[in-house]
Amino acid sequence: MASLFTRIVRGEIPCHKVAEDDRFLAFLDINPLREGHTLVVPKTEVDKFFDLPEDLLVGIMPFAQGVAAKIERVVPCDRIGISVIGLEVPHAHMHLIPIDSVSDMDFGKPKLKLTPAQLAAIAERIRKA
Amino acid sequence: MASLFTRIVRGEIPCHKVAEDDRFLAFLDINPLREGHTLVVPKTEVDKFFDLPEDLLVGIMPFAQGVAAKIERVVPCDRIGISVIGLEVPHAHMHLIPIDSVSDMDFGKPKLKLTPAQLAAIAERIRKA
Repeated sequence: MASLFTRIVRGEIPCHKVAEDDRFLAFLDINPLREGHTLVVPKTEVDKFFDLPEDLLVGIMPFAQGVAAKIERVVPCDRIGISVIGLEVPHAHMHLIPIDSVSDMDFGKPKLKLTPAQLAAIAERIRKA
Repeated sequence: MASLFTRIVRGEIPCHKVAEDDRFLAFLDINPLREGHTLVVPKTEVDKFFDLPEDLLVGIMPFAQGVAAKIERVVPCDRIGISVIGLEVPHAHMHLIPIDSVSDMDFGKPKLKLTPAQLAAIAERIRKA
C-alpha cells in the first residue's frame, strides 16, 4: 500500500505545498513544532533515509537548502534545523524547523494547533518568498 | 578564533575518530544521547549548515551514509536519525544518532556518562565495522 507521503505526492491527499521539483516535494507539517515547520520528501517511496538511492541522497540537500532559505525569509528565527527520524511514516522525510533554541526541535512537546486557513496562509507566504 | 571543531580537525584537541576523508571528519559526541552518537563535520569552518558551499552540502550525505552504516553494524537500533541544530558550536555539524524511539533524539534529556575508555572502545568498533 502506498505510504501517506506517496498519496500526498500523487495528490490523493491534499497538502500545504511549499516547493516541488521532479524529485522532491516540500509541504507544511500539519502538526508543527514551529510555524513554518516543513517536511521534505523524495517522490520515490523508500522507508529509511540512508537507503535512498545516491541521486536522491545527494540531491535532497540543495533542494532543502532552497526551501530553508524561503522559510527563513518568512519566519523570524536564528536558523533552520534539520531532523530525520522516520519512525512513524515509512517514507523517508526530512523535517525543516525554524529554531531559536534546542527545545524548538523537541518532538516530545505539544504541537502547535494551526487551522487549515492559517497553514494555507503560511505555505503561500513561503512559496512566494 | 578557530572553532572547537576546527581545533579537533587540526588535531589540537583529541577526539574519538570514527571516519575521515579529505573534506569531512566523523567522531563520537562525548556527551552522547545514545552509545554511538556521532558528529559529522566538514573540515571547512562555516557556521550555518545551509551556508555550506554546494560541494560540501552535496557531499556530506554520502559520507554520513557510510558512517551511519558502520554505526548500525555496531549499535543495535531501528535506524540512524539525523539532527542538525548548531546553536552551540558555530561550525556546521550533523548528529548521527542510533534510534529506536523519538525520545532517543531528545537533546533536552540527560546525556550518557561514558568514560574516555568506553568512548575509545566504541569508536574503534565503529571504525572497524
